[in-house]
Amino acid sequence: MKVSELGEVALIEHIAEVLGPTSVSATDDPDVLISIGDDAALWRPPDTDQLVTTDTMIENVHFRLDIISWRDLGWKSIAINLSDIAAMGGIPQYAVVSLCLTADTEVESVTELYRGMAEICREYGCKVVGGDTVSGPAVILTVTLIGQASRDSSHPDNVLSRSEAKPGQRIAVTGNLGSSGAGLKVLTDGVDLEDSVFEHLTKAHNRPVPRVNDGQLLLAKGVRAAMDLSDGLMSDLPKMCAASGVSARVNVDCIPIHSYVKSVFGEQALELALSGGEDYELLFTADEVVFDAVKRACPTPVTVIGEVVAGKPGQVTLLDGEGREVPWTHKGWEHFTPTGEPETRKK
Amino acid sequence: MKVSELGEVALIEHIAEVLGPTSVSATDDPDVLISIGDDAALWRPPDTDQLVTTDTMIENVHFRLDIISWRDLGWKSIAINLSDIAAMGGIPQYAVVSLCLTADTEVESVTELYRGMAEICREYGCKVVGGDTVSGPAVILTVTLIGQASRDSSHPDNVLSRSEAKPGQRIAVTGNLGSSGAGLKVLTDGVDLEDSVFEHLTKAHNRPVPRVNDGQLLLAKGVRAAMDLSDGLMSDLPKMCAASGVSARVNVDCIPIHSYVKSVFGEQALELALSGGEDYELLFTADEVVFDAVKRACPTPVTVIGEVVAGKPGQVTLLDGEGREVPWTHKGWEHFTPTGEPETRKK
Repeated sequence: MKVSELGEVALIEHIAEVLGPTSVSATDDPDVLISIGDDAALWRPPDTDQLVTTDTMIENVHFRLDIISWRDLGWKSIAINLSDIAAMGGIPQYAVVSLCLTADTEVESVTELYRGMAEICREYGCKVVGGDTVSGPAVILTVTLIGQASRDSSHPDNVLSRSEAKPGQRIAVTGNLGSSGAGLKVLTDGVDLEDSVFEHLTKAHNRPVPRVNDGQLLLAKGVRAAMDLSDGLMSDLPKMCAASGVSARVNVDCIPIHSYVKSVFGEQALELALSGGEDYELLFTADEVVFDAVKRACPTPVTVIGEVVAGKPGQVTLLDGEGREVPWTHKGWEHFTPTGEPETRKK
Repeated sequence: MKVSELGEVALIEHIAEVLGPTSVSATDDPDVLISIGDDAALWRPPDTDQLVTTDTMIENVHFRLDIISWRDLGWKSIAINLSDIAAMGGIPQYAVVSLCLTADTEVESVTELYRGMAEICREYGCKVVGGDTVSGPAVILTVTLIGQASRDSSHPDNVLSRSEAKPGQRIAVTGNLGSSGAGLKVLTDGVDLEDSVFEHLTKAHNRPVPRVNDGQLLLAKGVRAAMDLSDGLMSDLPKMCAASGVSARVNVDCIPIHSYVKSVFGEQALELALSGGEDYELLFTADEVVFDAVKRACPTPVTVIGEVVAGKPGQVTLLDGEGREVPWTHKGWEHFTPTGEPETRKK
């Protein structure tokens, strides 16, 4: 059955049913007073500060339905917003989903989409409390996520911010970089791979893991500066440096890249790690003592890739293991490029 | 200059500049701790419950750039969300804006868009604290608005809800119905009109006035059931009746319709009032005493159009002045229609 045959009212009822306990009513979460079905959702905020972030995914700009399943699309639409909350060290709470579908979308596809959302919401303890469904020329998903700032009151700053990097600090990342970009290339170019390699790389792209718990741990251990890597290191690190009024030096030999990415892409692996984008790992800066405390406590591997230095705000220099500058001409991902051609890549 | 020539980083800076004091920094609003520019915005919630609503507008589905100015589009994108907060009797606080532009959009158009947003935000005391900008195949605007529930603690229910209509109550609306639909017809069909008539009708469509203060007043006077009229009375009233488990009887002769709509559209005026949509007036129910108190205090005219009755949930019967049933076959606006053709109408 197509959504046009089901109609809007029945579609919203169906969505609420698929979300199940992830879409809450007054009876099963005392803090959510009104959920899906009224003009707005109503919740009782905790006695902490509140966070909000929003991200849009557009068919044939940010995703292609021939290389991502509806279920993974649902997962990813929430994941990229959870990643922003993670980058603030926050605790995710409530999501609203604005969904545009073409009239010929199968209801089963919508079911899968919301199953993917329900899966990730359950995993990270957040709930879909409202949204908007419209009919249009393409599939478009805008998720807005509300979270709460950390309850840690041992310091006045209860969030991570991209403007707190200080000269002398180490620059570090969680996990590996380049796997998502590699996964996209595998999916679009149809590279022939062993199942385990294919699965690892494509999952990194289609079903990214937001570093929610790691973000909270960074904050608790004393980290103050962080952001999530959505546009690629060479696009995001300059933004962090600009916001903090500092420069950065990165040792390319230190950048953590999964062995599968190296084995499949060889020399191209570094470029994927620097500008492939959509890894949704956390980029953070910290002095040595704080970094060591993070490294001991964090279940996700963390790797030092460079240092913050005084200098032109936003300038990032790449160095090799012997301290020689590595030229960088690749522009990284920009949403409004001079060529103007939207690519199926990332946001 | 086109947005593709300006680039994303400069575009976001430009947007923050246009929004000016509407986009707050920590220095000019003590409750907003982080605004545009970080991974998420951070605010200190008041000691009341919080509201959230979201609405998407898509080019050539919800608006056409040949009949709405960029400035009015900015106004309207916020207005339709303010209307949802108004329908809960809430106080608007913060907006996040997810904006998709085509690469060839003029920067001046973006300036006008955000000027329109700044105008309405100033008027209703809300602030744009974040968002997302992407490049895509059409102009798409998703606004998510956060508000606070009324501070009135004289009763446990501090919001209006669409599920609180009770048999025996009067059904009433603020303002006039049909003007927005009339304005759209004037704009699309190119009707020849006096300037004042043209301006009145097209403004009703392109620059709707959200009933924010009226919503708060309804709540303070004891109203419990309300929703905003976005899809048209004959689409929205059945939703309210379904949510409340009641039926409704509406006297079509009582429906308030502006004299311009009647004079321009004659017999079609009633259909515009019943299903034209996008009036963004408030629909509410109340007993006689409460209604009279509202009528005395409300600066916007309020009109009784019918009564809530026990019966099949969601059923609405139209009657004429002599109590005869008026047949209603028009389907009203549905987002996923069997024909599947998105019209340039409303959401």
